Amino acid sequence: MRFIIQRDRLVHSVQEVMKAVTSRTTIPILTGIKITAGNEGVTLTGSDSDISIQSFIPVEEAGNELVEIKQTGGIVLNARFFSEIVKKLPMDMVEIDVQNSFQTVIRSGRAQFNLNGLDAEEYPHLPLIEEENIFKLPADLLKTLIRQTVFAVSTSETRPILTGVNFKMENGELSCIATDSHRLAMRRAILENGVNGSYNVVIPGKSLNELSKIIDDNTELIEIIITENQVLFKAKNLLFFSRLLEGNYPDTSKLIPTDSKTDVTVRVKDFLQAIDRASLLAKEGRNNVVKLTAFDKGIIEISSNTPEIGKVVEEVQAGSIEGEELKISFSAKFVMDALKALEGTDIKINFTGAMRPFVIRSLHDETMLQLILPVRTY
Amino acid sequence: MRFIIQRDRLVHSVQEVMKAVTSRTTIPILTGIKITAGNEGVTLTGSDSDISIQSFIPVEEAGNELVEIKQTGGIVLNARFFSEIVKKLPMDMVEIDVQNSFQTVIRSGRAQFNLNGLDAEEYPHLPLIEEENIFKLPADLLKTLIRQTVFAVSTSETRPILTGVNFKMENGELSCIATDSHRLAMRRAILENGVNGSYNVVIPGKSLNELSKIIDDNTELIEIIITENQVLFKAKNLLFFSRLLEGNYPDTSKLIPTDSKTDVTVRVKDFLQAIDRASLLAKEGRNNVVKLTAFDKGIIEISSNTPEIGKVVEEVQAGSIEGEELKISFSAKFVMDALKALEGTDIKINFTGAMRPFVIRSLHDETMLQLILPVRTY
Repeated sequence: MRFIIQRDRLVHSVQEVMKAVTSRTTIPILTGIKITAGNEGVTLTGSDSDISIQSFIPVEEAGNELVEIKQTGGIVLNARFFSEIVKKLPMDMVEIDVQNSFQTVIRSGRAQFNLNGLDAEEYPHLPLIEEENIFKLPADLLKTLIRQTVFAVSTSETRPILTGVNFKMENGELSCIATDSHRLAMRRAILENGVNGSYNVVIPGKSLNELSKIIDDNTELIEIIITENQVLFKAKNLLFFSRLLEGNYPDTSKLIPTDSKTDVTVRVKDFLQAIDRASLLAKEGRNNVVKLTAFDKGIIEISSNTPEIGKVVEEVQAGSIEGEELKISFSAKFVMDALKALEGTDIKINFTGAMRPFVIRSLHDETMLQLILPVRTY
Repeated sequence: MRFIIQRDRLVHSVQEVMKAVTSRTTIPILTGIKITAGNEGVTLTGSDSDISIQSFIPVEEAGNELVEIKQTGGIVLNARFFSEIVKKLPMDMVEIDVQNSFQTVIRSGRAQFNLNGLDAEEYPHLPLIEEENIFKLPADLLKTLIRQTVFAVSTSETRPILTGVNFKMENGELSCIATDSHRLAMRRAILENGVNGSYNVVIPGKSLNELSKIIDDNTELIEIIITENQVLFKAKNLLFFSRLLEGNYPDTSKLIPTDSKTDVTVRVKDFLQAIDRASLLAKEGRNNVVKLTAFDKGIIEISSNTPEIGKVVEEVQAGSIEGEELKISFSAKFVMDALKALEGTDIKINFTGAMRPFVIRSLHDETMLQLILPVRTY
């Protein structure tokens, strides 16, 4: 294999596939990046066996020659060294030349690296996925869906299914749900093309975080293809495979209260900052818990008390408070996470008493919902 | 004690004194910041007993009222909480009000914090320093002196004296020397006022690093006052005390070779980048060692070889090479540190054979010098 390639483009693709490569793998060849050169262009592959990423650099794009293929073939090069080397090469063009016994020469200007490579044939094959049912979502919407839900997945392996986000596709609508059993985030979106099939799968939170980092924030359509145990996200020149989590995701629909006893509207910024301040002292105490008191005068009081350090109290002007007076305690972190995920300047919160979960929504957006379980202190 | 103060100014001073505060202290009150309010303004003090920093906020500056003193007095507040609180307060003005039993109220807008304070009388006193001999240096020059030498101090406690920078003042000239016995950095500067006294002290590298972070990069004169076991740096509204290291600094003047067998001039950027690339693979091997070969054709070859990973070789065009051909090995890190500390675009290197220390200087600047011991590999 021998080709000459634009360095910037190579660096970009290496950084994409590096998102899947980990040094903590039991399969030595997966510490490498597979590089294959065909007549159409160069393909890079990285994988940790849970996530696999493939990035393609075409020979030509929009009239620019990106790669000059001298000889097709393949090699696997140590990912860490290869990625550091290409970043620091001196010139705009790089030549990669595989010689005898997988010895690979990387040349740029007057610098020449010789790296010991591995046989590309030994690299695990990516799953073959039949493209039967293809869902499509704009890249920026997919990123938003992930951002608004993935923070709520469980970080504990005691119930592995909760470490993923539940993607349900039904009647042309996608709903994404994440919960760690103390809070729940849900976001719905309309799919771009009316596919008949209905799917109910759980995608690992870690995969979605990595995916979110490498897809661009634009309206390009991402294709989503689901199989028995894999999901494939296809963007231009990019394939992102993730395994699915096995097992049934709990039915969360019954958790969401339909009635309410106290309804509050408030500006996100004021509310978030007051909780942030109250949590400064609460972090040291038990679980970062702050208290909220809603009076019918339209004032919300946020407070926390950690006797060994001190206490803090702040009043926030609500837009409206309707229903019963309320005292409730909750994790400042969970509520701040939820508030940061919401869009818009104002929110409504529906409380059903101090011991029941409460629901936070944007004031004028029904597509997403954040549910938080209170902490019992009163 | 009670005063109202501009939040931004308070945040700035808190960040300055925080540089001296550590949570790893055996003296509990030093985890706090001492705040005293006098008729002239507010003074903050932080200390880890090696370094003490005092920042003063005057009542008025350039016609702006910065502080309104309601009642003089003092308090010690937990440094970590106090610094986080002031950063996140909602309004531009902050009121600090010490009540019974050192309870301190911090008010800003509708937020109110109550912090448990400690008696300011219990806080250790700063050293009393008689201002007899005052040396003066512009702040930016002092920062440069520190930057160009402090990286070469020893990080090992086996010879504690080498963890500091040797400041020698004699005949109106200051020379700063740091060495970890594998490399040496030296920088000389003319003092602003012709003081008669001569001093020879060793200031801990850690103190200089912290000092460098809080002095501004301008030409304001910093006063340096040296006593038996303390040094005081005085800037506007800022006092920085550091203890001195005890013991005699080794005489390094004999280490610097006066003769030379191979003289090279080269552009810093080309040389630095080639060593950086060669060190990519060398890092994994023994001690990040790269090889330099100087031919009389005006070519420097930089290379490294780590058999299990690969090898790299690069030619760098020298400005000139005079004297014997040379092969020498050295720590890539040490040479890169030295090159980054030098000023100017071109350097000269004087080698006295493969086993002898070599000297790097800026091509047109004799005030500083970097000496590196080679690594024996040939």
